[in-house]
Amino acid sequence: MLIIGELLNGMYKEVGEAIVKKDKSVIQKIAKAQVDAGADALDLNCGPVSKDPITDMQWLIDNVQSVTDKTIVIDSSKSKVICEAIKKAKNKVIINSTTADKEKLEILVPLAKEYNSGLIALSIDKKGIPQNKEQRLELAANIIAFCMENDFPVTELYLDPVVMPVDVAQAQLKGIIEAVREFKLLCDPSPKTIVGLSNISQGALDRSLVNRTFLVMAQEAGLDAAILDPLDEKLMDALITAELILNQQIYCKAYLEAYRKSKK
Amino acid sequence: MLIIGELLNGMYKEVGEAIVKKDKSVIQKIAKAQVDAGADALDLNCGPVSKDPITDMQWLIDNVQSVTDKTIVIDSSKSKVICEAIKKAKNKVIINSTTADKEKLEILVPLAKEYNSGLIALSIDKKGIPQNKEQRLELAANIIAFCMENDFPVTELYLDPVVMPVDVAQAQLKGIIEAVREFKLLCDPSPKTIVGLSNISQGALDRSLVNRTFLVMAQEAGLDAAILDPLDEKLMDALITAELILNQQIYCKAYLEAYRKSKK
Repeated sequence: MLIIGELLNGMYKEVGEAIVKKDKSVIQKIAKAQVDAGADALDLNCGPVSKDPITDMQWLIDNVQSVTDKTIVIDSSKSKVICEAIKKAKNKVIINSTTADKEKLEILVPLAKEYNSGLIALSIDKKGIPQNKEQRLELAANIIAFCMENDFPVTELYLDPVVMPVDVAQAQLKGIIEAVREFKLLCDPSPKTIVGLSNISQGALDRSLVNRTFLVMAQEAGLDAAILDPLDEKLMDALITAELILNQQIYCKAYLEAYRKSKK
Repeated sequence: MLIIGELLNGMYKEVGEAIVKKDKSVIQKIAKAQVDAGADALDLNCGPVSKDPITDMQWLIDNVQSVTDKTIVIDSSKSKVICEAIKKAKNKVIINSTTADKEKLEILVPLAKEYNSGLIALSIDKKGIPQNKEQRLELAANIIAFCMENDFPVTELYLDPVVMPVDVAQAQLKGIIEAVREFKLLCDPSPKTIVGLSNISQGALDRSLVNRTFLVMAQEAGLDAAILDPLDEKLMDALITAELILNQQIYCKAYLEAYRKSKK
């Protein structure tokens, strides 16, 4: 599974302050820690503190790229930020994210195509967050259709069912896992699937336990990528063990250790 | 989910010795500990030490029943042991187990019907352990057909896909989870599904991690019951959290505590 580190986000105090003060050492330390823990890619989000998100995102990209060649995930709800920041990227990029709204797709799908980048697409539109699996599938199908019409390869599309917190929408969670499974069946070759994991445990007491339990279920359903905290060792243990059970890693007695060594 | 405690098995040293010495205090202590930890039912297996498994199983049933009214799971590969021991049972019983072989079904299905008991059926026959999902489904379908022809309610049938150790049959594990999902679709109303969980981690270093990761996946696939170690707290935490995510428990902040209190 593609592991995308979530920690370089301005909503975290340390990162937000580093962005404001332009303290690259904090950013680079967190980037390296995530890569060392197994991240294949790093999500970059300026967060609410940024007054000039284009400049700040470019600064983040520059400083992260100077310490790692892992994939950069440019995370912004503003298409303009993504369009400008992507020019700075030397490494492989994933755009995070478009919605199913045509205005966004019309900007971000051609951009992803131009830069040979991946594209995360939330199964959400202006009407708001879908309330059930069927709505998620309908929005995902619209996104896939748009990509096909515009010759964007669906194998570079990461469909996100939009994970809801367990304390807000408990009844939807099983449908979200089923959406992951059914997204994979919408076309052949299949699109990729992704979740922003930590949202599920907003407000929960043992966040890691809730996160890793949901993650393992989503992995069995065919999840291809997750934005998560790679420094959470218990979460990573569960992820690696799920890959083992799903026959995506070769078994050996010290498989956790072997996996971690293989990432270095 | 129906949690069946696995610890009263003569293959464990302490239990084997207690069976040989007829030391009921050991048996009753383990019975109570499992119930306190959340077991809904207790598997009883005389193990390899027993020279007179009929008498020993009857002794186990008598002594367990005198400390708990939880369901008794009579676990023996010998139909004769089950036929004799079940006469001692005052509480609800589940028979563990029949295979898909007609000689066994012809004895154990009428017995389960007579005693209004549950019946665990392994998707296995004389030819050996199935090598893929399709063979498991074929055997399960044969078992269901036999139950229907003999008016045994499939809602009392617990189909077991036969869990294999990860170090022996890693490539089969995903198919075993899918078998759980597809067993539920074989008839309407659905049969129940069950696994003997601990077998998956034979030979593994962190057995609990492998057990609980597999269990969570199987729960999402529709698992109704599991034979497991209820004293493994991390396993139980994962089980409870999976039920939460699958909307089988009502969410509250202290849901682990609330679940455990509800079991007492």
